[in-house]
Amino acid sequence: MITSDSLRRDLDEASGPDEDARLAVATRADSVLRPRGALARLDEIAVFLAGWQRTTHPRIERPTALIFASDHGVTAEGVSAYPSEVTGAMVQAFEQQVATVNVLAREAGATLRVIDVGVGDPTGNLAVEDAMSEERFAASIEMGRQAVVDADSDLIALGEMGIGNTTPAAAVSAGVFGGDPASWVGRGTGVDDEALNRKTDVVRRAIDRVSSVSDPLEILRRVGGAELAAIAGALVEARRRSIPVVLDGYVVTAAAGPLGVAVPGGLSHCIAGHRSPEPGHDKLLSRFGMRPLLDLEMRLGEASGAVAAIPLIRMAAAAVVDVPTFEEFGLPPGA
Amino acid sequence: MITSDSLRRDLDEASGPDEDARLAVATRADSVLRPRGALARLDEIAVFLAGWQRTTHPRIERPTALIFASDHGVTAEGVSAYPSEVTGAMVQAFEQQVATVNVLAREAGATLRVIDVGVGDPTGNLAVEDAMSEERFAASIEMGRQAVVDADSDLIALGEMGIGNTTPAAAVSAGVFGGDPASWVGRGTGVDDEALNRKTDVVRRAIDRVSSVSDPLEILRRVGGAELAAIAGALVEARRRSIPVVLDGYVVTAAAGPLGVAVPGGLSHCIAGHRSPEPGHDKLLSRFGMRPLLDLEMRLGEASGAVAAIPLIRMAAAAVVDVPTFEEFGLPPGA
Repeated sequence: MITSDSLRRDLDEASGPDEDARLAVATRADSVLRPRGALARLDEIAVFLAGWQRTTHPRIERPTALIFASDHGVTAEGVSAYPSEVTGAMVQAFEQQVATVNVLAREAGATLRVIDVGVGDPTGNLAVEDAMSEERFAASIEMGRQAVVDADSDLIALGEMGIGNTTPAAAVSAGVFGGDPASWVGRGTGVDDEALNRKTDVVRRAIDRVSSVSDPLEILRRVGGAELAAIAGALVEARRRSIPVVLDGYVVTAAAGPLGVAVPGGLSHCIAGHRSPEPGHDKLLSRFGMRPLLDLEMRLGEASGAVAAIPLIRMAAAAVVDVPTFEEFGLPPGA
Repeated sequence: MITSDSLRRDLDEASGPDEDARLAVATRADSVLRPRGALARLDEIAVFLAGWQRTTHPRIERPTALIFASDHGVTAEGVSAYPSEVTGAMVQAFEQQVATVNVLAREAGATLRVIDVGVGDPTGNLAVEDAMSEERFAASIEMGRQAVVDADSDLIALGEMGIGNTTPAAAVSAGVFGGDPASWVGRGTGVDDEALNRKTDVVRRAIDRVSSVSDPLEILRRVGGAELAAIAGALVEARRRSIPVVLDGYVVTAAAGPLGVAVPGGLSHCIAGHRSPEPGHDKLLSRFGMRPLLDLEMRLGEASGAVAAIPLIRMAAAAVVDVPTFEEFGLPPGA
């Protein structure tokens, strides 16, 4: 059975970021041929990469986008603008390399992998029953972990595809962080007012079901979804292997929430790729103290907002590693 | 003599964006395999590119960053944290392909060209005299135009290098748009409070000198700088040739101001690459109704903020052109 305790044990021996590498890159960033601090957020990203890649020469050479896909029993409640069949159709599009995120990944020089954790095999309707059995939950987490092992990557962008999955995202967030359930519910891919009300009602019912549950991982199992569990697993494995991660939008960040609560520093290897217009996403980013790299009103999912940020992350590393210091260039320091 | 009238005449026969191409790409963006509007700002960029590239298949295949460099007599007033000699040193760094923007341009797949419009040949000290004679102003504008002709590019990122040049940026902006001169003055590459006061005083004196001048191009000549004039020229030529432009930070946007005022729609072929922390930049962006693609607190200049946005612009085009519509993919429209 996977609980917060078991995850903490898994990460017990995981190192934090390499502080020597961070310091070396921060020092170099302040010495290279530009006014100190002129690249601001990009320099911070370079330092972040140095810490988790454990090197004074951070690089993005093998970025991988992992997209976890699953179906959701809660679509029976009419919470989505699209029918469940679209999940499978989009997975086909990913595999045929024609979806939006395939095109973005090509431009970003990233590999894209789709992991089916339940397409055509919907989780339970979280309004009335647990989304996953303990077995399915554990298997989904394990699939997420294995995907990170298989990716052999120096930067992982996490994404998802699953019609209806902003509903479990809202339910997990409300369950883990509290507050008015309605404040965690948005329009997803674009539902009308009536569906928005149904969605809010579904989240309330889900939260009522888990009101006595305190373990955030157990909340994820009961009101989450298989791709959310897989994302949590991928985050654990990336943390264990010290691989930096770029989070996508609301669903991915909601899936990260339980780990962030269960394990101190459990998300310190993560940055936010973009800010989604879903109101719940902004609330999560504030809780985690994450400032997204992009804010372009994108609301696609599919890892699109994480992948769109990869070129900036690559630039951040190169702008420290490949630019000479004032002294290397033959000028007095800080000229 | 270059005046607002002469620029208006130059652009008299310039076309606006190709509305048919815009409509075709906007329609396609709403039909491709993703929820309508899910890429938001990126779809808007694709439509913008279609209009100015005059094609239903916008592409960024030959992006060029043009960096105009010059020195400024106003540095005698102690308005910069760096000595004038740094302008020439940085031009050397650009030419040796080692400066920050070279590294960013490499990552963005962009060509970088540096155009010397007055390195070691400072303009007049705008606190006490005109920055440029009419001849120098005309020659600088012409160098900017020629650089665009020579670039033969499908997207131009504009940048600058010139120690002291946030002072003419502030003076031009205050002269053209009015308001308290202090509100246009920021810390540039990082001056202390004392230098900031000197800088504000210099801008006040410059504005006093041109208080009776109404033509914004004449203000640019008298209180601007050679690289600002060249940028204005580049903008005119790009507008004439219907080439989309990405603006960099405060100095580039300030150089664009006179054209924006002189010619209706004179900047409609421009987008903002990023938002600089210089307070004046934000004021200009608001005036022009421009929302920058990036907001990462970068304050480098060198076209860095424009170049950093190029991968997003390339993604925006590809995400419309390379993604099939629902029908092309074999699904009912808008499934």
